[in-house]
Amino acid sequence: MLALGIDPGTAICGYGFVESRGSRLIPHAYGSIFTSPKMKMEDRLMKIYDELDALIKKYQPDVMGVEKLFFNRNVTTAIPVGQARGIVLLTAAKNNLRLVERTPMQIKQDVTGYGKADKNQVIYMVTKILHLPEPPKPDDTADALAIAICTTHCLNSITWRNQL
Amino acid sequence: MLALGIDPGTAICGYGFVESRGSRLIPHAYGSIFTSPKMKMEDRLMKIYDELDALIKKYQPDVMGVEKLFFNRNVTTAIPVGQARGIVLLTAAKNNLRLVERTPMQIKQDVTGYGKADKNQVIYMVTKILHLPEPPKPDDTADALAIAICTTHCLNSITWRNQL
Repeated sequence: MLALGIDPGTAICGYGFVESRGSRLIPHAYGSIFTSPKMKMEDRLMKIYDELDALIKKYQPDVMGVEKLFFNRNVTTAIPVGQARGIVLLTAAKNNLRLVERTPMQIKQDVTGYGKADKNQVIYMVTKILHLPEPPKPDDTADALAIAICTTHCLNSITWRNQL
Repeated sequence: MLALGIDPGTAICGYGFVESRGSRLIPHAYGSIFTSPKMKMEDRLMKIYDELDALIKKYQPDVMGVEKLFFNRNVTTAIPVGQARGIVLLTAAKNNLRLVERTPMQIKQDVTGYGKADKNQVIYMVTKILHLPEPPKPDDTADALAIAICTTHCLNSITWRNQL
């Protein structure tokens, strides 16, 4: 089962494909889509849509995982974050991809064993779990891989499956 | 020149086409796209995308106008509003439509002459300016028409044109 984790953002949108084969987790393509602040917002969103859509068509994941956001504490970034997130959800719907949403706390709990883990702990554990040669960069890529890992666990767990 | 005004929302997304012919403003199609809260969020966003895209292809507007939002006072709605707004901006980019953004205050000032006008004043003036048989419903449709009116004025004004 191949999961695609996404960390939505307008400037940097992280993505990571993680395959679950038995008890093993195998990283496939991962990275970030970058857009320049010099571009018009609508063109930045289209770049994210087009690149993400191409990645989905290339790697054919079974499921997409994204963070569940009830609200954004930073009121000035909530609208742009929401805009990028809307684009990501649209690529899921357009590609008929099942969507799994988990809160930041659930993702941290799953990857590090501690729901209030800091960024460095998450990056450290993602690197360990996936046996990566070095920590993924930027942080958005690491976050996307963390979401992908959590998504595979989520679908493999009978308890969790019943919640879906 | 045909302007399409949009009031983005996940449950109700208002739209209104307004043509500027000389000093006259002529309303064309207007209404709202509705999505059910029973649908998955990604499917609601896809419905908005598909219906809006079809309207644009049918009426071929020259420009799209949307409210400029720096932040949303309501932190719980900022993410969903941002998601719907992202979808709207994507339809503009995908259809190569020029985008005009105006703040809520600029739109109210333009339509009613008062930047802090209330909802009823806006609905009243939209109905007057466009010689509509009755106030457009729901409010989201009226807001979309207000944005379309403001967008035509914006593009017709030499002063404003220089700002674009």
